[in-house]
Amino acid sequence: MSVHAFDAAIALAPQGEGALQGRTSPAYANMIGPFGGITAAQALNAVLQHPQRLGEPVAFTVNFAAALGDGPFLALARPARTNRSTQHWVVELRQGEQAVATATAVTALRRETWSATETPMPQTPLPQEVPLPGRAGRVEWLNRYEMRFVEGSIPPVWDGADEQDSRTQLWVRDHPPRPLDFASLAAIADVFFPRIWRRRAKLTPLGTVSMTVYFHCSQAQLHATGTGYLLGQAQAQAFRDGYFDQTAQLWNEAGELLATSHQVVYYKE
Amino acid sequence: MSVHAFDAAIALAPQGEGALQGRTSPAYANMIGPFGGITAAQALNAVLQHPQRLGEPVAFTVNFAAALGDGPFLALARPARTNRSTQHWVVELRQGEQAVATATAVTALRRETWSATETPMPQTPLPQEVPLPGRAGRVEWLNRYEMRFVEGSIPPVWDGADEQDSRTQLWVRDHPPRPLDFASLAAIADVFFPRIWRRRAKLTPLGTVSMTVYFHCSQAQLHATGTGYLLGQAQAQAFRDGYFDQTAQLWNEAGELLATSHQVVYYKE
Repeated sequence: MSVHAFDAAIALAPQGEGALQGRTSPAYANMIGPFGGITAAQALNAVLQHPQRLGEPVAFTVNFAAALGDGPFLALARPARTNRSTQHWVVELRQGEQAVATATAVTALRRETWSATETPMPQTPLPQEVPLPGRAGRVEWLNRYEMRFVEGSIPPVWDGADEQDSRTQLWVRDHPPRPLDFASLAAIADVFFPRIWRRRAKLTPLGTVSMTVYFHCSQAQLHATGTGYLLGQAQAQAFRDGYFDQTAQLWNEAGELLATSHQVVYYKE
Repeated sequence: MSVHAFDAAIALAPQGEGALQGRTSPAYANMIGPFGGITAAQALNAVLQHPQRLGEPVAFTVNFAAALGDGPFLALARPARTNRSTQHWVVELRQGEQAVATATAVTALRRETWSATETPMPQTPLPQEVPLPGRAGRVEWLNRYEMRFVEGSIPPVWDGADEQDSRTQLWVRDHPPRPLDFASLAAIADVFFPRIWRRRAKLTPLGTVSMTVYFHCSQAQLHATGTGYLLGQAQAQAFRDGYFDQTAQLWNEAGELLATSHQVVYYKE
């Protein structure tokens, strides 16, 4: 059995002193450096595979300090505080003497309580009813995901039209399909192309500087979701002087809101 | 001239080795430990007053690892990476040998670009037209803010009714008024009472575990906002097995979206 490209990409090898070694993956290459979602998954994986980890991820923030150069990096994860049912993590990814990403995570032992989804899944056609894009992605990581755009796909022409809004809805899963877990869900939270491209139909240079993911799910729910599609929705709230935000929701086909996410993105003009 | 309670509360004294000493403030006391917003402001202030700081805050995440005990704490802020126009910060607040909060921040030199607000300020009555609550706050920090609830105030009776939604809109500013800055804006991002109380009209025990604030403003805009009111809006997206999220927006009276914020909150049942 061959290893899925995602598992190969997030693999970390112990180096002693709590350090792990990872390596950038050509399969997830972006225009400059890797797809941010894979860097996020690598940072989260340093927590997930830590022998002292308590519980499952609840909150995760990753800050992209620099584009990673092709090759190895060190991942350093330490539990800054361990409570009875929660644990606080600080993570740093390094190349040479320089930080290329910083991250924090909160993991927790969860137990069943009253629960409710307040942001319901939008009504959309079924995944099978939404066509696949007709051509391969312009950058390699796009070929690692099956994306079926329901609304707000990449603008067909870059004519600089100021659209009414920046919203996108799409069905998405790993390509080839892979059972969902916390690491792949964190990566999928970053699959939305930048909202400013959608809003302005203009290819301004940009890069995510920080992303936060809140997990509203257990490993059991992820297991039940399996290789099914996720419905993703993303929209910006403000574009101001070189930085904009985007908020995102990810539901499984059963309509469960598995994760909410937010990011702030640099843009040149 | 007397010092404003907020300035006294976030004051940090250099201790050498890059450490700063702060102290919890009785003026911002919550039920157990301090108001999370003041802890957030203290952590951000460790970055703001750092001699190596580059630019203004763009993104800030604080993780509440434990309720602070009354008394002093150490704030440790270090620039993990400094680029040409952005800087990545890692912050830890400690009491004794234990972390009580961790944080990361991204600061940046911003320059004027095409800008737009995609989430417009809701239509509401003017601040002066919205009555003040008739009684003092149940916990001390509530008395440090002037809050005029437009919609979704604290439930008048705790009858466990499951409301349709968890949304709150309010006009808010420091009490007494104080010119807005990045630290006070970060604190105000946490003034919204927990969405689960609003949604369920039930006082379940809880506590914020992580909050992120994105700043969509410059110091000049904050200066222009001055002591004016902010319109705040907050709503949950999901409540699941002990943790819920809430998203928030803060506009000034001119309708500029100054900050967007997200947090995840533990709840007992």
